[in-house]
Amino acid sequence: MLDEKILTILRNNRDTHVSSDEMCKVADISRAAIWKHVEKLRDEGYEIEAAPHLGYRLVAAPDSLIPSEIKHGLKTKVLGREILSYKKVDSTNTVAYSLAEKGMKEGAVVLADEQTGGKGRHGRKWASPPKSGIYLSCILRPDIAPNEIAGITLLAAVAVAKSIRGLTGLDALIKWPNDILVDGKKVCGILTEMKAEQDRVDFVVLGIGININTKIKHLPNNATSIREEMDKKDGPSRVEFTKRILESLEEEYVLMKKKGFGPVIDEWKEFSSMLGSRVRIVLPNRKIEGIAHDIDRDGALVVRFDSGVLEKVLSGDVEMVR
Amino acid sequence: MLDEKILTILRNNRDTHVSSDEMCKVADISRAAIWKHVEKLRDEGYEIEAAPHLGYRLVAAPDSLIPSEIKHGLKTKVLGREILSYKKVDSTNTVAYSLAEKGMKEGAVVLADEQTGGKGRHGRKWASPPKSGIYLSCILRPDIAPNEIAGITLLAAVAVAKSIRGLTGLDALIKWPNDILVDGKKVCGILTEMKAEQDRVDFVVLGIGININTKIKHLPNNATSIREEMDKKDGPSRVEFTKRILESLEEEYVLMKKKGFGPVIDEWKEFSSMLGSRVRIVLPNRKIEGIAHDIDRDGALVVRFDSGVLEKVLSGDVEMVR
Repeated sequence: MLDEKILTILRNNRDTHVSSDEMCKVADISRAAIWKHVEKLRDEGYEIEAAPHLGYRLVAAPDSLIPSEIKHGLKTKVLGREILSYKKVDSTNTVAYSLAEKGMKEGAVVLADEQTGGKGRHGRKWASPPKSGIYLSCILRPDIAPNEIAGITLLAAVAVAKSIRGLTGLDALIKWPNDILVDGKKVCGILTEMKAEQDRVDFVVLGIGININTKIKHLPNNATSIREEMDKKDGPSRVEFTKRILESLEEEYVLMKKKGFGPVIDEWKEFSSMLGSRVRIVLPNRKIEGIAHDIDRDGALVVRFDSGVLEKVLSGDVEMVR
Repeated sequence: MLDEKILTILRNNRDTHVSSDEMCKVADISRAAIWKHVEKLRDEGYEIEAAPHLGYRLVAAPDSLIPSEIKHGLKTKVLGREILSYKKVDSTNTVAYSLAEKGMKEGAVVLADEQTGGKGRHGRKWASPPKSGIYLSCILRPDIAPNEIAGITLLAAVAVAKSIRGLTGLDALIKWPNDILVDGKKVCGILTEMKAEQDRVDFVVLGIGININTKIKHLPNNATSIREEMDKKDGPSRVEFTKRILESLEEEYVLMKKKGFGPVIDEWKEFSSMLGSRVRIVLPNRKIEGIAHDIDRDGALVVRFDSGVLEKVLSGDVEMVR
């Protein structure tokens, strides 16, 4: 709380120095205490100048996924009202899941600079090198049945695609069921996990991993990062991106709560990389090929075979047939 | 392991004494060690006679839900290969869930003599007074999608109904979605919980609570116990019941793995307390009334309104209209 108070004073006076006296007055603590808090902020990556007789000045804020940076100017009501930030975790989804089990409220967000065991769908890995991507998991407690859960992934995909488009102008597309592509390559994956009774979801942990500044050599084949695709040195900051994603997520989530998954699915279709195209899908025990015809209410992919027959696919790996 | 070895020698010689010498030979330990293990078994409730010069004799086994008793003569391959037994827990489902998260294998069973926070559907309570009921949770890892989870509850209901009928002759019926009734009163409840991704179940914790010797005064309204309904002092033992339920569960589970949920649902219909009857269902935001027409493939109740229109109900509280 005091750190944030001091940060606010410095942020509000970025083009000048704030004297120790003034900071003591506003924060209502001693000079020594001010110094201690400034040191702590510096440890977190804030660049703070201390000039004799003049006082303190905020020179630069870190592009670090820490609560004070993410919360600063964040326009959400629920998502991010609690933020837990880690330098290194096994998996943000695992941390968030365990917090949710202990009763953590909807909207809590777990962030990490690095994941040592980043997870993808079905036990796969998600490359999570340090300080280059956004590894974010969010606790949601929607009033839905387990068979509606796919809608949460669709909703998140729409939010991320919109965020990327809005911040970078890149033509982000959604690949069913859980990836965001730029120029045909994976830039983001979504992992939705839940605890549920048979007819009621207890909580959802929505995990989002985005390659922001990640170097190609640290990524698997067929993956890319925002910076790589933007082709300039300084893309949007990870902090800026995280805030936009939380805001966009909240917008879609509120829309869903008001009107169900219908409008979200309509948006999803606009961003789809594959609807209308020929696809091959690897199912657990066979492969099928046809036209990606539609996404239905349950988030399933409807495939149209050459015979005209339609099949609903709930799960599988899709590749485009060229 | 040694306890079980000693127990086996004693069980195989119930009408005679086994000399210390013989036990030392078979178990390959000292006289003093034999004595220590016998004391431990006595602590668990085994009545073991020690006669000078003659040796040890097993007089009575406890009706206690401990691994050595449940595993003795249990005819299952998977369910119960690991049994964890507690005197008192918060909820066996909570314990089993947490074990499953740590990687505990399919078939592990958690038993307790008493639950201080026994759970029912939707955060309700399940009365679990000490040593009178069976409080059992089972870890399953079926290869199913989250929208098939209701089938696991149906399967368990069939297994319990069959066990009650087989052991007691009572006319046990299933009340959708998760109760077993005898003479119209609740004798068993089933709570199915899962961890899942959007298209794949990670694990299921199947919780079963049965009132065996429970006194009516310890139960909520409209509930009963096996002993109460059998109207004699000594019903089947809790150990015997637990074994039968595990065996019956495994049978249904294997059937489902081979042939899907179809045959299980057919059996379910035979034991249904309500199909064909007039029911009133309390849904989250309204009440409906009609004929309980069918159970569909997803385990949903199909209600036929007076207009002839059918509605699928995934979740709700049902009461019979007389």
